[in-house]
Amino acid sequence: MKKVGIVMGSDSDMPVAEKAIERLEKYGIPYEVHIYSAHRTPEAAKDFAENAEKNGFACIIALAGKAAHLAGSLAANTMLPVIGVPVKASVLDGMDALLSTVQMPSGIPVATVAIDGSANAAILAAQIIATNDEELSEKLKAERREAAEAVLAKDKKLNS
Amino acid sequence: MKKVGIVMGSDSDMPVAEKAIERLEKYGIPYEVHIYSAHRTPEAAKDFAENAEKNGFACIIALAGKAAHLAGSLAANTMLPVIGVPVKASVLDGMDALLSTVQMPSGIPVATVAIDGSANAAILAAQIIATNDEELSEKLKAERREAAEAVLAKDKKLNS
Amino acid sequence: MKKVGIVMGSDSDMPVAEKAIERLEKYGIPYEVHIYSAHRTPEAAKDFAENAEKNGFACIIALAGKAAHLAGSLAANTMLPVIGVPVKASVLDGMDALLSTVQMPSGIPVATVAIDGSANAAILAAQIIATNDEELSEKLKAERREAAEAVLAKDKKLNS
Amino acid sequence: MKKVGIVMGSDSDMPVAEKAIERLEKYGIPYEVHIYSAHRTPEAAKDFAENAEKNGFACIIALAGKAAHLAGSLAANTMLPVIGVPVKASVLDGMDALLSTVQMPSGIPVATVAIDGSANAAILAAQIIATNDEELSEKLKAERREAAEAVLAKDKKLNS
Amino acid sequence: MKKVGIVMGSDSDMPVAEKAIERLEKYGIPYEVHIYSAHRTPEAAKDFAENAEKNGFACIIALAGKAAHLAGSLAANTMLPVIGVPVKASVLDGMDALLSTVQMPSGIPVATVAIDGSANAAILAAQIIATNDEELSEKLKAERREAAEAVLAKDKKLNS
Amino acid sequence: MKKVGIVMGSDSDMPVAEKAIERLEKYGIPYEVHIYSAHRTPEAAKDFAENAEKNGFACIIALAGKAAHLAGSLAANTMLPVIGVPVKASVLDGMDALLSTVQMPSGIPVATVAIDGSANAAILAAQIIATNDEELSEKLKAERREAAEAVLAKDKKLNS
Amino acid sequence: MKKVGIVMGSDSDMPVAEKAIERLEKYGIPYEVHIYSAHRTPEAAKDFAENAEKNGFACIIALAGKAAHLAGSLAANTMLPVIGVPVKASVLDGMDALLSTVQMPSGIPVATVAIDGSANAAILAAQIIATNDEELSEKLKAERREAAEAVLAKDKKLNS
Amino acid sequence: MKKVGIVMGSDSDMPVAEKAIERLEKYGIPYEVHIYSAHRTPEAAKDFAENAEKNGFACIIALAGKAAHLAGSLAANTMLPVIGVPVKASVLDGMDALLSTVQMPSGIPVATVAIDGSANAAILAAQIIATNDEELSEKLKAERREAAEAVLAKDKKLNS
Repeated sequence: MKKVGIVMGSDSDMPVAEKAIERLEKYGIPYEVHIYSAHRTPEAAKDFAENAEKNGFACIIALAGKAAHLAGSLAANTMLPVIGVPVKASVLDGMDALLSTVQMPSGIPVATVAIDGSANAAILAAQIIATNDEELSEKLKAERREAAEAVLAKDKKLNS
Repeated sequence: MKKVGIVMGSDSDMPVAEKAIERLEKYGIPYEVHIYSAHRTPEAAKDFAENAEKNGFACIIALAGKAAHLAGSLAANTMLPVIGVPVKASVLDGMDALLSTVQMPSGIPVATVAIDGSANAAILAAQIIATNDEELSEKLKAERREAAEAVLAKDKKLNS
Repeated sequence: MKKVGIVMGSDSDMPVAEKAIERLEKYGIPYEVHIYSAHRTPEAAKDFAENAEKNGFACIIALAGKAAHLAGSLAANTMLPVIGVPVKASVLDGMDALLSTVQMPSGIPVATVAIDGSANAAILAAQIIATNDEELSEKLKAERREAAEAVLAKDKKLNS
Repeated sequence: MKKVGIVMGSDSDMPVAEKAIERLEKYGIPYEVHIYSAHRTPEAAKDFAENAEKNGFACIIALAGKAAHLAGSLAANTMLPVIGVPVKASVLDGMDALLSTVQMPSGIPVATVAIDGSANAAILAAQIIATNDEELSEKLKAERREAAEAVLAKDKKLNS
Repeated sequence: MKKVGIVMGSDSDMPVAEKAIERLEKYGIPYEVHIYSAHRTPEAAKDFAENAEKNGFACIIALAGKAAHLAGSLAANTMLPVIGVPVKASVLDGMDALLSTVQMPSGIPVATVAIDGSANAAILAAQIIATNDEELSEKLKAERREAAEAVLAKDKKLNS
Repeated sequence: MKKVGIVMGSDSDMPVAEKAIERLEKYGIPYEVHIYSAHRTPEAAKDFAENAEKNGFACIIALAGKAAHLAGSLAANTMLPVIGVPVKASVLDGMDALLSTVQMPSGIPVATVAIDGSANAAILAAQIIATNDEELSEKLKAERREAAEAVLAKDKKLNS
Repeated sequence: MKKVGIVMGSDSDMPVAEKAIERLEKYGIPYEVHIYSAHRTPEAAKDFAENAEKNGFACIIALAGKAAHLAGSLAANTMLPVIGVPVKASVLDGMDALLSTVQMPSGIPVATVAIDGSANAAILAAQIIATNDEELSEKLKAERREAAEAVLAKDKKLNS
Repeated sequence: MKKVGIVMGSDSDMPVAEKAIERLEKYGIPYEVHIYSAHRTPEAAKDFAENAEKNGFACIIALAGKAAHLAGSLAANTMLPVIGVPVKASVLDGMDALLSTVQMPSGIPVATVAIDGSANAAILAAQIIATNDEELSEKLKAERREAAEAVLAKDKKLNS
C-alpha cells in the first residue's frame, strides 16, 4: 500500500499531528512523519514534496499555524493530493492559518480540513487511498457504522 | 475511468461550477452534473451520495453558498472523498459558506478549497484519480509545467 | 400539550442543553431529549424530523457546534418550527456555528438564538406553544415580571 | 386566523420587507405592516408590542439594520414570538445587524433568520401559526414539495 | 454640579462599572448607579432616561454586553449625551456588544468607548461636564500631567 | 456660543464631513473645518488640539479612515471631548478605522460614533454644548420630535 | 546604488505594483520588476531570492493576494529585508492576504504594509536604502515636507 | 554601529519587548529601550522620533496594543524605517492592534510584523542594518542555518 506523508512545520504541532497518526495506525496505512518548515527549511520541504510520488506516497498531510504556507508549498512541488490542517498556533484562534491554507490560487489546490482537524485529515487520506482499495474502504465504512451506533447507543441510554 | 460528480445546491451556482467542468473536460475525466439541495431535496442528495460509489464515481465536488451544508450532507452519506467549494452567495463575502463547509466535526471530512475555487476542486479531483492513473498524472504535470512557463514568459516579456 | 424535541449533535453539548431542559421543566412542558448527529447519524436525525409532527411535537430545538448543520437538516425534513442553538465547540468562539445555523437559504428557516443560548431556545419554544395555550402564556408573563422585579430589587438594594 | 405583524425600523427596509409580505399573501395569512423605529419612535414600537397579543397577532417579524435593536425592543414588550431579520444597511455587510439581533440576553429570545432573510421570516411565522392550523400546515408542505420538484426538474433538464 | 448616571444592564457588569465609579469619586463628581435592563426592565430604563435631565444629570454612562441595546435605548429617551461601554459578556470577545453599541442609526448618537473601557467613559463624562467647569477641567489636566509623568518616570527608571 | 471643530485627515473625507456641517448649520452652532493629518501634518494637528480650548472650541469632531489615529492624536493633546468618526476609506469596510478609533487606552477617551456616522457626531457635539444651553437643548428635542412624527406619518400613510 | 526588487505573484497585480514603481522612479532608485509565483514557479522565486543579495538588491517588495505566500517564500530564501504587500484579490477584501503575509513564524520576518499599500512599500524600501544614503534621505524628507505643505494648503484654501 | 530604538507604549508591553531585546543582544547590536505612549506622552514620543536619526539610530521598533498608534506616530516624525509590533493587549486578540498598525495611509509606512512578533521585529531591524554590514549579515545567515539544522535534527531524531 502507498504511504501517507505527515509533515508539520514545527515540533510544537505534534499534539495535533498525533490524532492523524492514531487514525492511520488504526487503518493499517503506512506513514512517515516529518518536521519540515516552509520557511526555516524550504529546501527540505521542497525535496520531500518533489520526491513524494516516486518514494511511494499516495498523498501528504501538512500541518501548520499562523501564516500557514506549508501545505501550499508542498502542493506547489508535487501533483499528489495535499491535505492542509490549519493549526491554532497564534493569538487569532487559527483564522490566520485557515485563510493561509484554504485560499490557494487557481492551479494549486490544498484540500483543507477544519482548524486542528487532523483526525479528519487522516480519514480523508484514507478515503483517497480507498478509491482503489476495497479492503480499506470496508474498514472506513465499518468505522463509520460503529460511530453511528455509538451515537445511537448514547441516545438510547439517555432515553432508557 | 471513474467519474467525478459535481453537485450544486442551486442552479445559480452554475457559473462557479462551469470552471470545474471545463477542467474536467480538458483532462478527459468523465463527470455528471446535478442540482440537489441539502435542504430543498435532502432525499435526492442522500440517494446520490449513497449510490455514488457503486455508480462509478471516484469522488464528489459539492458547491453551495450561505449556510453551505451540501458538501457535509453528501460526505455523511458516502465514504468517497467529498470536495467542498464554498460559494459567495450572500452578503457575507462567502465567509459563512467557508466556515459551514470546512469546520466539519471529527469523522466526516470535507476537502475544502477556496471560496469560489471550483477550478481547484476539479484539479484536486483529478489528483485523487491520478493516484492510480499514470496517464492522467502526466497530463496534470504537463499542465502545471505549462502554467509555470506561461508565468515565466510573462516575466520575460516584461523584462525584454 | 404537545412536546418539545431537544436534539443535540453530540453528548458533549449536554451542558448547554441542560439550560433548555430546566426551563421546559419549570414551565411543565413535556419534552424529549435526543442525541442525533446530522453527519454521524443522518438517517436517525431525518427519521426524527419526518415523524416529529405526528409524534406530537410542537417544535424542535437543535444544538450543534462547528459547521452546525443539525438544525438545518432537521428543518429540511419537517414543517415544524426548528430553533437552532449554535454551540461554542471549536476554536472560533462559536462564530462558525452561528453562521452555519442562521444563514439558511430561502425556503428552510431556522429560528436562531444566541451562541450557547439554550435557555432562550426553551423560552421561544414555550412562546410558540403559548400562542394557543393561555395558561402557559400566563406562566411566561409571570416569569418575566419576576425577572423584572429581581432586576429592580437589585437596583433598589444597590441604592439603599 | 391570527395576524402577523411586520415592523420595520425605516421605510428604506421596505424592499426587504416585501419578500415577507409576498409569502404571507400567498399563504392567505392576514398581516399588518408598520414603520416603527426602536430609536426614533420607541413609544410607538412599545405600544405596538404591548398590545399585539390582544390585537390578534400571533407573532411579529421585525426588520432592522446597523445596531438593530428593533426585534429585541419588541420582544422585551410582548410574550409573542418575535422573529428578527437583520438587514444589510451599513458598510459592515449586515454583520452588525446580525449580532445585534441574535445575541440577546437570557430571558428575551429573538428568533433570528439570515441577513435580509425576510422570506424565511414569513415561512417561520407561518410554521408557528400552522402548529394549530392544519390547513396552513398542508399549504406549507405543498409549497415545499413544489420547491423540491422545481429543483429536481432543473436537475432533470440539465441531464436530458 | 450635575450628576453622572451609571446604568448597567446586569449586576454582573458591576466589576466593569467600578472602574468608572472610582474615577468619578476621584474627580468629586456626584453620580448615581442603577441596574436597569433594556430588555428585562424596559419601562424602568425608559423612565430613568426620560427624567434624567430634570433630575439633574449631565450625561449617562451605559454598560451592557452581547446584543447591547441599553445605551441606544437610553439615548432614544433623552437628549443628554449617552456614553456606551460595550462589555465583554459573551463568547464573541465583546465584538457583538461593540457593534450593537456603536453602529447607531442617524439621529440617535451613542458616544462609544472601548470594550470594557469604563474608566474612559468616566473621563469622557468628566470632560463633558468640564466644558463648563473650570475647576474640574484643571483636575483633569492635572491628572493627565501626572499620568504623563508616571510614564516618563518609568522610562527614566528603565534607563538609569 | 462655543465652536465645534471639525478636523478631517484628508480632503477625500469631505463628503462624510458635510453631513456633520449641515447639522451644525441647522442648529446654528458655530464651527471651523480643518484638514489636518495625524501622520502627514502631526504638528498642525497637535497645535490645533492644544489651543482648541482657549480658541473657544467646546469639542472636536475628527474624521479619519484606515489606521485612523486622528481622533486619538487630537484627544492626546486636549482635555476637550473628542468625537471620532471612523471613515470607510479602505478595502476593509471601515472596520480598521472603527477599531483604530474606539479601542483607545485608558486615560485618553474618544467618543466614537458609527462608521461614516458624521451626522450623529454633530448631534453628539450639540448635545454636549446643550448640557449648558437650554435653547439648543430645545432645538434638539424639537428635531427629534419631528423625526418621530416623520416616521409615524410614513407609518400612517402606509396604513391608509 | 543598490536595486529594489519588485516581485508580483501574477500579472493581474500590476496595477498595484505600478504605484510602487512610480515612487521608485521618482526617487531615482534602480529597480527590477518580476512576475514569479510562489506556487506556480516556486523554483524561479527561490532562485531570485537566493541570488538577490549578490545581484545587487538592497531589499525586495513582494505583492500577492489570497493565501499570499510570496513574501514569506522569498524571505525564507534571503536575508535581505522583504516587504510584503497584501493584495485584495479575492472575495475576502484582502484580509486573507493580510494574515497570510503578516503572521509569519519567528525567524522569518516580512515587513508588511497595508492592503494594496504598494506606494508605502516603495517608501519603506527607500527608507531602508536611505539609512546609508544621505542624498536619498534628503529626497524623502523633502517629499514629506511637500506632502505636509499640500495638506496645509488645502486647509488654508478651505478656510480662505 | 547604529543603534536600534525599542519604544513601547506601556511597561505592560515589556514581556513582549524582551524577545526583541534578547535578539539584538545576541547580534551585538546596540539598542535603547524607552516607554513612551503616543497618547499619554505624545511630546516625548515625538521628540524621540524627531531626533532618532541624529542620535544614531538606524531604525525604530514600536510595540503597542489596542488602538495601537505608537508606530504610526513615530513614523510621522522620522524618515527612519519604523517597525510596528501589534501587541495583544485587549479582548480582541490583537486584531485591533494589527489593523491600527498596518493600515497606514499612503506616505507614512510602518513595517508591521505579526501580533506579539517582537523577535521578528528585531531580526528585521538587523536585516536593515545588515544591508550595509557584512559581518552582521553573516551572523544572520549563520543563525538561520542553525535554525534550519535544528529543525532537521528534530526531524532526524523523530525518524531514527
